[in-house]
Amino acid sequence: MFKYKFTRKMIIAATCALALINPVFSADKVYRLKLAETWPSNFPIFGDATKNLAKMVQTMSNGRLKITIDSKNKHKSPFGVFDMVRGGQYDMGHSASYYWKGKDPNTLFFTTMPFGMTAPEQYAWFYYGGGMDLMKKVYDRHGILSFPGGNTGNQMGGWFQKEINSVADLKGLKMRIPGFAGEVLAKLGAKPTNIPAGELYTALERRTIDALEWVGPSLDLRMGFHKIAPYYYTGWHEPGTELQYMVNKKKWDSLPADLQEILRVAMRLSAYDMYAQSYHASGENWAKMKSEFPNIKVKTFPKEVISAMEKANAELLVERAAKDPLAKEIIDSQAAYMKKVRAWSEISDNAYLNSQK
Amino acid sequence: MFKYKFTRKMIIAATCALALINPVFSADKVYRLKLAETWPSNFPIFGDATKNLAKMVQTMSNGRLKITIDSKNKHKSPFGVFDMVRGGQYDMGHSASYYWKGKDPNTLFFTTMPFGMTAPEQYAWFYYGGGMDLMKKVYDRHGILSFPGGNTGNQMGGWFQKEINSVADLKGLKMRIPGFAGEVLAKLGAKPTNIPAGELYTALERRTIDALEWVGPSLDLRMGFHKIAPYYYTGWHEPGTELQYMVNKKKWDSLPADLQEILRVAMRLSAYDMYAQSYHASGENWAKMKSEFPNIKVKTFPKEVISAMEKANAELLVERAAKDPLAKEIIDSQAAYMKKVRAWSEISDNAYLNSQK
Repeated sequence: MFKYKFTRKMIIAATCALALINPVFSADKVYRLKLAETWPSNFPIFGDATKNLAKMVQTMSNGRLKITIDSKNKHKSPFGVFDMVRGGQYDMGHSASYYWKGKDPNTLFFTTMPFGMTAPEQYAWFYYGGGMDLMKKVYDRHGILSFPGGNTGNQMGGWFQKEINSVADLKGLKMRIPGFAGEVLAKLGAKPTNIPAGELYTALERRTIDALEWVGPSLDLRMGFHKIAPYYYTGWHEPGTELQYMVNKKKWDSLPADLQEILRVAMRLSAYDMYAQSYHASGENWAKMKSEFPNIKVKTFPKEVISAMEKANAELLVERAAKDPLAKEIIDSQAAYMKKVRAWSEISDNAYLNSQK
Repeated sequence: MFKYKFTRKMIIAATCALALINPVFSADKVYRLKLAETWPSNFPIFGDATKNLAKMVQTMSNGRLKITIDSKNKHKSPFGVFDMVRGGQYDMGHSASYYWKGKDPNTLFFTTMPFGMTAPEQYAWFYYGGGMDLMKKVYDRHGILSFPGGNTGNQMGGWFQKEINSVADLKGLKMRIPGFAGEVLAKLGAKPTNIPAGELYTALERRTIDALEWVGPSLDLRMGFHKIAPYYYTGWHEPGTELQYMVNKKKWDSLPADLQEILRVAMRLSAYDMYAQSYHASGENWAKMKSEFPNIKVKTFPKEVISAMEKANAELLVERAAKDPLAKEIIDSQAAYMKKVRAWSEISDNAYLNSQK
C-alpha cells in the first residue's frame, strides 16, 4: 500500500514537473541564424552594422534569437553570399544588392544608381514610395527577403592624379570604378578596370591607374589615397549607397511572429544607424585628412562632363528598360519619385546650406 | 478515506495547475505604459510615429508590453506632457524638447537650433558625437529619459505677404515664429507673435500678421497658407526639428531588460522612420502645392539678412553660455561638431545636388 501510494505520487510529481518545465522550454526555444557578410573581419562601419544587429536581436528576444556572423575570412566567398543564402547554407547575408546583377540584372537598382537618389531621398522611396514592393518582386523569385542594410552616404567621385576639365580628358582614363558607373564612363571613352582592394594604393601611386573611387572619407582615410593623389572629386555615381540584408525565405517563415518582427526592426534600425555612423565618420575623417594634407583639392566635374555622363547614363537606362518590363517598372518608379523628392531636397537642406556660404 | 484521498488529489491537481500556469504568467506578465502626446488625435506624421511605436512594441514583445496613446484631445494638456511624465501621471510622452525651456532652459538645445545642424548631421551628433550624453545630463535632473522622437526635416522659413530684401524689411514685421528664432528676429526689430494654430490662416489672410512659419510642405499643405501668401522662404531657423520621446525613469527601471531594449529600439526606429515619412510627404505635398498654385515664389533671404540673423543668433548663444556651464558645454559641443560635419555635408550631398543644376 505504501509503495503503491509512493509510486502514484511519483507519477503525479513527474507529470507535474514535466508540465512545469514544458511551457518554459517552448517559450525559451532558441532560434539560431547564421549570417555571412561580404566584408572582412572587423571591417569598420559595415561590420558594426551586423554586430549592432546581433546584439539588439539577442537582448530584445531575451536570448531566444541568436545571430552568428561569419566574415569573408571564414566563409571565403564574399561574392557568394547571395547563392549561400538562396541555397540555405547561410540563413542571412549582409552585402550589397548590386553585386548580384550577374545573377539577376534587376538586383542592380536597390543599392544606388548614378545620378540617383541621396540617402534620405532613397529611404523615403524604399519605405514610403514603393521601393520595398519592387525589391520584393525581384527577390521573391529567388526565395530571398531583401532589406536595406546601411547607407554609406554620398560617395565621393574619387581620387584623381590629373584634373578633369572636359569630356576629352576622360578618353583613355584608366580608373578603378565598378558597376553601372563604369559602363557610363566607358561610353565616354574611359577605361574602367577592377583591381583588388589590397593593390589599389600601389596601382594609384605607380600610375598603373589614373584614378579610383572607393567610398568617401569614412573609409578612404585608412586606404591612404589622400597621400598620393592631389584631386578629390565630389560624387555623381553612388549618391546613396545602401547595403543589404538578405534572409532565406524558408528560414524566415520558420520563425514565430514576434521574432520575425524583432529581426525586421533590428535590421531596419541597424541600417539607419549605419547611415548616421557613416555621416559621423565622414565628418571626423575628412577633418583628419585636411589637417594632415591641407593641399587636397576638392573638385566637382565641370558642367560639360556632368551633362555628358548624365546623357550616357540615361541612354544605358533606356536600353535596360527596353529589355525587361520589371526593369522598366523600377527605373520609371525611381525616376518619377526622384523628380518629386529632389524638388524638396533643393528647397530644404540644399537651399539652407547654400544660403550660409 | 475516499473523501480524504479525493481532497488530496485535488490539492495535488491544484498545485500542479498553479505550477503550470505560473511560469506562463510570469513570462507573459503584461507591462502597460501610458503615453501622452502633444498632438491632437490622428495628427499626421507626428501621430503616426507613436502608432508605429506602439505596434512594433506590441508585436516584438508578443503582447507583453503595451502602450496606450492619449492625444491632447484626451489629456487636454499639450504643454503639460513634461510635467505629467515627470510626475508619473503618464509613463511616456511624445513632444518636443524645446517646449520645456521655461522649466529648464537647457532642454532648448535638443530639438533644433537656428543655423544649426540638418537632420542627418544632428542624428550623427546625437548617436555618435556625444549628443545623447548631454541630453541625459539635462534630463537626469528631472527623473526623465529623453530620446529623439522623429524629424520633420528642414523647416521652411515661412509664408510671407511681402518680399524681404534687406534687414530694414524685418523692422516691425509681425510674424508668427516661436522660440529661439523669434528672439533672433526680435533682436533685428521684428515683432514675433504667437497665435493658436486654428487662427493662423485668418490672421495671415487678413494681414493681422505679415508672415508665419509652420513646418514645411509635409504639414503646411493642409493649413492652406499657399492659397493666401505669395512668398515661401527657405529655412534658417529650424534646420532639423527632432521631436522627443520621454520615459519616466522609475517606470523604465521597473521594466525587464528585454522590454527596455524593445522600447529603446522601437523609439529609435520610429523616429528615423518619421524622418523618412516627412521627407516623402514633403516631396508629395510640394508637388501638389506647385500644381495647384504654380505662382508660389520660393525665395531665400538675401545674404545681408542671413548674415544679420547669424550674428544675432551667435550673440544670443554667447549670452546663454555665459549664464550656465551646462548650456556652454552643449553649445560648444554642437558648434564644434557642426563645423566638422558641415564640411562633409558640403562636399557630399550639397555638392552633388549643386552639380546637377
